[in-house]
Amino acid sequence: MAVNSCHCFLHSQFATLSSPSLASTRRLSSPSRNRITCTATPPPPSSSMEEGRRKLMEFPYVPAPVRDLMVDLISTVDNRLESQLHPCTLPLDVQYYENTTGNSQASLQIRRGQDSSPIDYILESWIHSKLPTGGDLNITSLLVNMNSSTDAPNFLTELIQPSPTSVIIILDLPPRKDPVLYPDYLHTFYESTQLDTYRQKLEKLPEVKPYLSPSLYVRSVFSPTVIMFSVETETGDSARMEEIVRSHLIPVFKDVLGIWLNQCTCGGREVGETEKAYLKKRDSLVRIKSIEIDLESSFPRLFGPELASRVVSEIRKVLSSGS
Amino acid sequence: MAVNSCHCFLHSQFATLSSPSLASTRRLSSPSRNRITCTATPPPPSSSMEEGRRKLMEFPYVPAPVRDLMVDLISTVDNRLESQLHPCTLPLDVQYYENTTGNSQASLQIRRGQDSSPIDYILESWIHSKLPTGGDLNITSLLVNMNSSTDAPNFLTELIQPSPTSVIIILDLPPRKDPVLYPDYLHTFYESTQLDTYRQKLEKLPEVKPYLSPSLYVRSVFSPTVIMFSVETETGDSARMEEIVRSHLIPVFKDVLGIWLNQCTCGGREVGETEKAYLKKRDSLVRIKSIEIDLESSFPRLFGPELASRVVSEIRKVLSSGS
Repeated sequence: MAVNSCHCFLHSQFATLSSPSLASTRRLSSPSRNRITCTATPPPPSSSMEEGRRKLMEFPYVPAPVRDLMVDLISTVDNRLESQLHPCTLPLDVQYYENTTGNSQASLQIRRGQDSSPIDYILESWIHSKLPTGGDLNITSLLVNMNSSTDAPNFLTELIQPSPTSVIIILDLPPRKDPVLYPDYLHTFYESTQLDTYRQKLEKLPEVKPYLSPSLYVRSVFSPTVIMFSVETETGDSARMEEIVRSHLIPVFKDVLGIWLNQCTCGGREVGETEKAYLKKRDSLVRIKSIEIDLESSFPRLFGPELASRVVSEIRKVLSSGS
Repeated sequence: MAVNSCHCFLHSQFATLSSPSLASTRRLSSPSRNRITCTATPPPPSSSMEEGRRKLMEFPYVPAPVRDLMVDLISTVDNRLESQLHPCTLPLDVQYYENTTGNSQASLQIRRGQDSSPIDYILESWIHSKLPTGGDLNITSLLVNMNSSTDAPNFLTELIQPSPTSVIIILDLPPRKDPVLYPDYLHTFYESTQLDTYRQKLEKLPEVKPYLSPSLYVRSVFSPTVIMFSVETETGDSARMEEIVRSHLIPVFKDVLGIWLNQCTCGGREVGETEKAYLKKRDSLVRIKSIEIDLESSFPRLFGPELASRVVSEIRKVLSSGS
């Protein structure tokens, strides 16, 4: 139940943030930035920015293999894309926040792409929460959303770990066009890249079961090759879980990220005005619908209504700052 | 392997036939009908039409509960929609056909909707084939496709039974709009109808496992509530399989058909010209892409190249006869 609700939450966090539609023409460096940021907490100085990023990369509550996986993925993305990104401008108390009881902590980084980049923004986060049942819930996420200068798919990965012997994994290149209406798109990004072989590889593990989001809208947002599994090892056998992460998940996650980096961030997918309008509309709907579905309802459960409201508001602000 | 190839085939049969786009303005009763049918075998006389339909309803090779299920579904559809349909005009040797070795037989009925109906066509079929491995493969199908006077989802059911203790079931209301771009559509037909509860009910059975089509395009065509499972009972326990069909599948299939009949065939979903063009384009793409994927490659394996070519050609003809 807790997993489900957090799963929803995380999905909505991603889905909510998955639309570049309001953010593709004006960027942090444009005059509009001042108009927006001057109404709220000013952006943190650079030492604070480093502090926020350092906190993110600690992944202090997850088992070592999960930390290694996330640090590896984020570092790989940084190596390839950092020069195209603005630094995170979230206020420091949104880059790291915790609830009043100290039961829930989170680290959040959002970096917007520069005007010349096809990246709309990159979101990285971890959330740690002590469950009422006594266990610990850990959620780690990396999302890269493209802007409407390209129709290339986004990149999404998320690990939701409600106990050391249980994890829900999500790894996908969420399409930005209806695959039914654009079969060539499906062929280019999903068929010719053999993405489904990675899903097939993981589904063979005896501890792996298919997992479906409770939200039909969230299900619709994923690609037909989405890796969305629940992995459970015997109670107490956290060693086997660590082995699964190291020997099976890490290679697959790294390969899929590699495919995305090579296929989706290297240009060649420029779009015309009509298509741009289509992408903006579709991306925007994903954001609006996802906020409606669960972002505003799930955050308060983890962090209390006030902090939740502040975090959601700052996320909204930074995402609309380029619009 | 045989199941997979037939599964592809059946999918393509459905998907191929799932577009009303070329068929929404001219119907069998229009002058264009003569122009088309006069170039081929003339339509069968009414006694032959009855013979073709009788042959279909026999479902002579499947276990009794599967026959009862199919007869029940088809009779229910007939009671509600028959007055809106033209009779099947396929040549008699396409309404029932078998290969030269006598290993594979099939019955096929396609009835087009009348001009005033939102139904584009109804396709009903069974296929029986002796597998090289010695077993029998049975595939039974019912597909109702809407025309572009409405945006309501289609109805699709298929049972693929490669042995008495194994069946792949597909039951869906394939959406005709991108659910990501049309969240209200998702809400109307899939969320508010609680369609997912039927999927949840069946997935609880210990013999049930999720099943994915090998084709990414086919996966994309289904709704997020699609019931697509492989059901396997212990070797030799065909009694348990029959019990599953009677006690679990039949009630779910009947309820889902009831939801579709009530929500999708009763009007109230008329669409404007722009939306009509969108529906025609999307439906048409499903047909074109599905032919490309596997119809023309799978039919020959079951029925030999000549008969396959004739059947596919007649199917194409009857579907384009209203275009």
